[in-house]
Amino acid sequence: MSPRTVVRPVAVVGAGVIGRSWALVFLRAGCPTALFDSDGAQLERAAAWIRSQQDGPWRPRVCDSLPQAMEGAAYVQECGPERLALKQELFAALDGAASPDTVLASSTSAFDMSDIARDVEHPQRCVVAHPVNPPHIVPVVEVLGGQLTAPAVVQDTLQFLRGVGQSPVLLKKHIHGFVLNRLQFALVREAMHLLDAGVADVEAIDTVVREGLGLRWALLGPFAVADANNDDGARAYFGGYVDWFIDLMNQLGPTPALDKAFIERIARELDDARGSTSREQVRGWRDRMVVEIRRLKAENPLHEEQEQRL
Amino acid sequence: MSPRTVVRPVAVVGAGVIGRSWALVFLRAGCPTALFDSDGAQLERAAAWIRSQQDGPWRPRVCDSLPQAMEGAAYVQECGPERLALKQELFAALDGAASPDTVLASSTSAFDMSDIARDVEHPQRCVVAHPVNPPHIVPVVEVLGGQLTAPAVVQDTLQFLRGVGQSPVLLKKHIHGFVLNRLQFALVREAMHLLDAGVADVEAIDTVVREGLGLRWALLGPFAVADANNDDGARAYFGGYVDWFIDLMNQLGPTPALDKAFIERIARELDDARGSTSREQVRGWRDRMVVEIRRLKAENPLHEEQEQRL
Repeated sequence: MSPRTVVRPVAVVGAGVIGRSWALVFLRAGCPTALFDSDGAQLERAAAWIRSQQDGPWRPRVCDSLPQAMEGAAYVQECGPERLALKQELFAALDGAASPDTVLASSTSAFDMSDIARDVEHPQRCVVAHPVNPPHIVPVVEVLGGQLTAPAVVQDTLQFLRGVGQSPVLLKKHIHGFVLNRLQFALVREAMHLLDAGVADVEAIDTVVREGLGLRWALLGPFAVADANNDDGARAYFGGYVDWFIDLMNQLGPTPALDKAFIERIARELDDARGSTSREQVRGWRDRMVVEIRRLKAENPLHEEQEQRL
Repeated sequence: MSPRTVVRPVAVVGAGVIGRSWALVFLRAGCPTALFDSDGAQLERAAAWIRSQQDGPWRPRVCDSLPQAMEGAAYVQECGPERLALKQELFAALDGAASPDTVLASSTSAFDMSDIARDVEHPQRCVVAHPVNPPHIVPVVEVLGGQLTAPAVVQDTLQFLRGVGQSPVLLKKHIHGFVLNRLQFALVREAMHLLDAGVADVEAIDTVVREGLGLRWALLGPFAVADANNDDGARAYFGGYVDWFIDLMNQLGPTPALDKAFIERIARELDDARGSTSREQVRGWRDRMVVEIRRLKAENPLHEEQEQRL
């Protein structure tokens, strides 16, 4: 990563939970970062949260207008509400206010940039950069363009986000739910099916992931796990049991009803498992532990090139 | 955990990769452990591997006959090849050689104990205890009985395996692939679909899991993740977006062809991503890192009761 890539003036538009977390990512990487939200109270809360971070001091430029936030910005991270009409309106406004070569990135988890940038004069600089919540803790970002996005802008966004310490991945085309939520809900669907079919309860299923699959997946993705499972790699692993795997995949459960009674059952079992620990304590613990796992991996790189990059 | 539960004479039957790893689990917990394999060379390799562990010295009782291994055993972990006829034959032999109140546990990842114990005189003490490979690194174990298994034996097996440091979970009935492989292949199926559909390449999909989903799943299972995602928990999280979730789950991909060309494509992309790092290096790194993540979690328990247990 070159310093030139990293130190780039950034504007974060929308100061909710995702926006304030993105602002922290950019500030920690040394980027001067403007922060704007049309809701002044939300903007103040976000700025206070950023200033309260122990590893600071982090000082966003708090802006009370969109044009003010756009001043000098080379990269804009849009974090508005997930409603298409709102995103379209916001992108038209960003496009009008920002210098024409400023990258306009959306945090959307749902929409196609071809739709978001429908009313925009410079769609070539509009790109999706979908983070996991919260991006200052979990590094992966799904990056993809719309039909009119310039390939160079997609590449530049990948490089910039890598430069600020995230783990961006390229999606080659739009698909409902992108990659992350599709993989997540493939597993969640089967988890719900197993619960519904009376095979295991919520805590047993969560334990199988937390003390089994998740321990490996924090280190190796699903393909790399298959590759490591056999001395001769994924060829031998998948190839040696093709019929068993196909049979298993064909027997996976359908989409559950997800009605009120089923959701209530899941929630009650979760309440029991959580006991007297609050959700805020769970989240705080999860965030601290994710940071520690990332530190562990950074200090013990698998590949030489990772060592050089980190 | 009481010392009485833990220190129990164990016999491991089958000394392949899973068997030798199980033996290490029991030896580390202080259980006198007999090891038998009908293949003398495999038995010797396994014993040498166990003795070579740095945190030892671990000394299994190496037995050259099944009756010798059964002498005094209170718990038997069967780790033979995954062929039903072989397992049936082996369980009949174990049942004949072991004292009638000895628990006979199978490491099978595929078969129903109702079938395995078909020819057994004392089926009430026969139970499935399916580990993740390797059990001395990854702690989860799927425990379930067959139609004739005594419920007390299932409970005792859960308690014993918890006592030796594993994370056993109860499956309330048999289902093809159990819980772990069904969840794994639900995600793998969608990963293959996204690759096949040209949405992302192998390394991008692996990165989404490794630097995104897996970081959370090493700490919280899929239901607990949903609970933590919303201030008001899983009720609000699932309930607030029911239509979106159902739509997403309904659009997940079908089972891929998994033909030779597709497997070859996956394998080639994995070879490129792995570069000059050997599979043995990947596995060694993975095992060391899983141990470190487990240490991190044990030293920073989320709940009070975990702290007391660990």
